[in-house]
Amino acid sequence: GLALGLWRRHTALAASREDEEDKELRQRFMAPPVSGLRELRRRRRELRSRMELLVMETQAEVCRALAALDPGASFSVDSWERKEGGGGISCVLQDGEVFEKAGVNVSVVSGLLSEEAARQMRSRGKSLKAKDDGKLPFCAMGVSSVIHPKNPHVPTMHFNYRYFEIEEADGTKQWWFGGGTDLTPTYLNEEDAVHFHKTLKEACDKHDLKLYPKYKKWCDDYFYIKHRGERRGIGGIFFDDVDSPSKEEVFQFVKSCAKAVVPCYIPIVKKHCHDSFTPEEKLWQQLRRGRYVEFNLVYDRGTKFGLLTPGSRIESILMSLPLTARWEYMHTPPESSKEAEILEVLRNPKDWVH
Amino acid sequence: GLALGLWRRHTALAASREDEEDKELRQRFMAPPVSGLRELRRRRRELRSRMELLVMETQAEVCRALAALDPGASFSVDSWERKEGGGGISCVLQDGEVFEKAGVNVSVVSGLLSEEAARQMRSRGKSLKAKDDGKLPFCAMGVSSVIHPKNPHVPTMHFNYRYFEIEEADGTKQWWFGGGTDLTPTYLNEEDAVHFHKTLKEACDKHDLKLYPKYKKWCDDYFYIKHRGERRGIGGIFFDDVDSPSKEEVFQFVKSCAKAVVPCYIPIVKKHCHDSFTPEEKLWQQLRRGRYVEFNLVYDRGTKFGLLTPGSRIESILMSLPLTARWEYMHTPPESSKEAEILEVLRNPKDWVH
Repeated sequence: GLALGLWRRHTALAASREDEEDKELRQRFMAPPVSGLRELRRRRRELRSRMELLVMETQAEVCRALAALDPGASFSVDSWERKEGGGGISCVLQDGEVFEKAGVNVSVVSGLLSEEAARQMRSRGKSLKAKDDGKLPFCAMGVSSVIHPKNPHVPTMHFNYRYFEIEEADGTKQWWFGGGTDLTPTYLNEEDAVHFHKTLKEACDKHDLKLYPKYKKWCDDYFYIKHRGERRGIGGIFFDDVDSPSKEEVFQFVKSCAKAVVPCYIPIVKKHCHDSFTPEEKLWQQLRRGRYVEFNLVYDRGTKFGLLTPGSRIESILMSLPLTARWEYMHTPPESSKEAEILEVLRNPKDWVH
Repeated sequence: GLALGLWRRHTALAASREDEEDKELRQRFMAPPVSGLRELRRRRRELRSRMELLVMETQAEVCRALAALDPGASFSVDSWERKEGGGGISCVLQDGEVFEKAGVNVSVVSGLLSEEAARQMRSRGKSLKAKDDGKLPFCAMGVSSVIHPKNPHVPTMHFNYRYFEIEEADGTKQWWFGGGTDLTPTYLNEEDAVHFHKTLKEACDKHDLKLYPKYKKWCDDYFYIKHRGERRGIGGIFFDDVDSPSKEEVFQFVKSCAKAVVPCYIPIVKKHCHDSFTPEEKLWQQLRRGRYVEFNLVYDRGTKFGLLTPGSRIESILMSLPLTARWEYMHTPPESSKEAEILEVLRNPKDWVH
């Protein structure tokens, strides 16, 4: 009798503690997590659960920081399901005072992949062995975001952090992380460029001094608009297919990067969102937005992969496109202009931190 | 003495006749042809010369018809050379009263192709045998054009007619034609759709009654934005890799199509260019322009091939993009609206001519 009573009291206490936790998490996030709080709690030690919480936290942190700067506007929050397994949460703020379009998207998807699709998901094209049915169970989750401000003196920012797991025929699990944060200014502001890169470098340096230089270069190489001979922006960091030194260590590194998004970017928005600008400056911003579209639709692996994947949510993928863009035939800024200044660093990337 | 004198007089007459012809041609075209008038005259019986004259004539015809409707604006004419061989003439009218952006481009290029590049040029992927150096001499020429009007009640129009020749190791020449004309309205006007398709059908029917239905379907299949489940517009005709029944017959068919461009489109522009429109209609046009960009950058074979070809002129390829475009997250027009009406025919193409 006594033992049973104690057990009952214990489970009642545990249940009410779980209710409290649920409430707290629900308040912390933009929407209930795709996997459900109970399931996440049940497998709390697994990396995929910890990563799902991290992407949810990052989404909420970034959305709140942006909303605080644009009090008139608000995020629309859409939770969506994927027929083939999983789903996501898309938060979009459109046509605000400060932001023209800001999207922060979480997706947590799972299901079966063909050997070919699995191979394509790893940028290094490593092959994976499927079971007899030719299919590999996988899960993929990530947070990705593009922020296009109105004022041409506030740069566009993009970040994305993602985690993949694929189970091979013999039961071994392959896993890897990818991600990055990068800045696309319309006009060059050296102080901002240094602040942005320095904040990222600090996040990297806590883990390994080799990471920042390596991922800074990877970023410059990746966001390259080949047909223009220009990078999309002034870079930041980018990495893909990272599976060493260990799952825990890469996760801690990704966490540091995700936590650096707000301190990287928000001070730059605050500093410039009330700067005055001319119609000519707005026009140059629109032309640069056109280049942003060119990169995303012609080269970006994530966008291309998304558009080709059956069951992917197109609106969440193309959320990255600016509200408006412009293409002029043969537009060339005059020499020594502010427009030519930014083109110069897009053509020849600089080191911003020594 | 006498014979020589007669010969001299004859050559002098011939030379002055040639001067006259030069003058006439120069007046007829937007710029001197890439191959030069003398060279074109020397090989006047060859199909590549006749095709070069046809694309030059078509460019001038279309530019003049457009300029007549937009008297305040004028075409900028750029002749450009391709380091690897050949060149082109780009005519662009930007920010006019009637046209937001109208480009008509001629290119006449030649040189050497790798076996792989040659195979990719033929949509059917037919293989071609190169000489020992692995290279195939080729020439390619064409006229291509996209017209984006300002008024949302005037549709965007695109056409392209092109000819290829490749010489194989044993000296045999492979040749083929491609092309098409298609319409992209912001709002559906059935009368315009019927006029456009009927004019194209008449051009086709003069040659073979099977052509219009076949090329109409090919057009609906080609201009498909897979990730949206929509066609880019209401179609027209499209064909590629056509090499039968004979070079002369295909050329005559292509000529009929090229001559149909002005009667297809210009009456529609005249009819609507003074229609009044609301800001909401302009906004819907901008969203449809966004879809135009998506098709051209993600799917269009010509654009993708151009962007990947070394030495190609990027400004002439991306001339097809609209001056401005817009992307809104989750934009869905209300049921039974005029916006939903055009979406319906973009999702389910109709037969406009019976």
